[in-house]
Amino acid sequence: MISIVLLGTGNVAKHLFNAFGRIREVNILQVLGRDEDHLSYFKEKVATASDFTKIMDSDIYIIAVSDDAISKVAPFLQQKKGLVAHTSGSVPLKSLGRQKSRGVFYPLQSFSEGRTIDFKKVPICIEAEDKNDLALLKKLAQFLSLEVHEISSDQRKSLHLAAVFVNNFTNYLFTIGHNICKDNNLPFSILTPLIKETVNKLDYLPPDDAQTGPAKRNDAKTMERHINQLNNKNYQDIYSLLSKLIGEKYGQKL
Amino acid sequence: MISIVLLGTGNVAKHLFNAFGRIREVNILQVLGRDEDHLSYFKEKVATASDFTKIMDSDIYIIAVSDDAISKVAPFLQQKKGLVAHTSGSVPLKSLGRQKSRGVFYPLQSFSEGRTIDFKKVPICIEAEDKNDLALLKKLAQFLSLEVHEISSDQRKSLHLAAVFVNNFTNYLFTIGHNICKDNNLPFSILTPLIKETVNKLDYLPPDDAQTGPAKRNDAKTMERHINQLNNKNYQDIYSLLSKLIGEKYGQKL
Repeated sequence: MISIVLLGTGNVAKHLFNAFGRIREVNILQVLGRDEDHLSYFKEKVATASDFTKIMDSDIYIIAVSDDAISKVAPFLQQKKGLVAHTSGSVPLKSLGRQKSRGVFYPLQSFSEGRTIDFKKVPICIEAEDKNDLALLKKLAQFLSLEVHEISSDQRKSLHLAAVFVNNFTNYLFTIGHNICKDNNLPFSILTPLIKETVNKLDYLPPDDAQTGPAKRNDAKTMERHINQLNNKNYQDIYSLLSKLIGEKYGQKL
Repeated sequence: MISIVLLGTGNVAKHLFNAFGRIREVNILQVLGRDEDHLSYFKEKVATASDFTKIMDSDIYIIAVSDDAISKVAPFLQQKKGLVAHTSGSVPLKSLGRQKSRGVFYPLQSFSEGRTIDFKKVPICIEAEDKNDLALLKKLAQFLSLEVHEISSDQRKSLHLAAVFVNNFTNYLFTIGHNICKDNNLPFSILTPLIKETVNKLDYLPPDDAQTGPAKRNDAKTMERHINQLNNKNYQDIYSLLSKLIGEKYGQKL
């Protein structure tokens, strides 16, 4: 049995709380959060506290707070015996300060309020300096997921950056598609089969090989018409820049 | 029974040929293509011809060739009685010239060689000037798909533009993510659960509401670090532009 104290009350904390709650071998002892309102979600299910000097003893302390708050929470755990791990994609292991045992437990997924995630498929990136700590994090991660990866702080930093491109920026392109549909009385759902196929292709074809479109085939006439169709300067800028870079990438192969 | 002559031998033609082949109520009479090599795929299954003056008579002629070639193929059909329809997302109906019956049969999907597509989920956008022609195209489309939409030439042009954003440009962002992973000895597959969740969210949340990330929360420190992490000027330009536009969009809501 692994005992856990969870520090944080946001989306990641809630999703981890519910996922761990389904694992027989894991016992969540306590959830901590500064805000009593945010703690209310947990109150009927587990011990809670808003006073960080009242942290219970456990095997692992998981810090699931915003990046900036990690260094504020960590000092409260300095006298504890157990392993202290944060869940951030971009904060280095060393930022946890002089804990005896420190690690990272980073679930690489976008967690939304009220949405259930199949944790078995969520890649969990773990890191620790000590072999035993790493083994403990691995054991914990494998209870949740089939995708557990040992990832260094540098790798994790890059992964987080890549996630901005494939999640944040991709979603913004969907927003543009959404707006174009809205402006032309078209349901956005007409585009989702195409979007899903774009993504499903990744399972068997690297994205370099799946690229299509006017920019790749250097179809200047279509690109010019598209730019003129866009009545939004920002969208024109994105269209031009991405087309230019795709053109440069594939230009020599033509 | 609807009889069809298919003009074209590319990916769209092949996918339509195979999809129609499974429909009892549709009979493909002939496939035409200039290139004998490309015709070989069809030869054992149906009558073929490379001479466009030898087109057989049928109910519908489907022109599934590249955009530029449509106006070259259409004149060969001018004396025919049946309905002439092209499959392009960006070519107006009128480009088919003075056919008696003309229409559009545009399957909104990205078709790749050797990949099987479930046509039931492919939105088919139809257009025709005559009521009976539209009814015929609708009947044909509904044999293949559960998603049949009557779409004007202007709407279709916008849809095609939106598809460039959500398919071509999105795929390019995946390429950047792929390269960042490669440069850091990380498997790209570690990002695919996140990518799939980004897309699955679209079924219940408009992309405007699903936006997250440093640009949305105006996290200047993280954005600056990300820019410095990128050792590729092009990627830096994309990061800056997209972050700026996301920041502008959500700035007032903060």
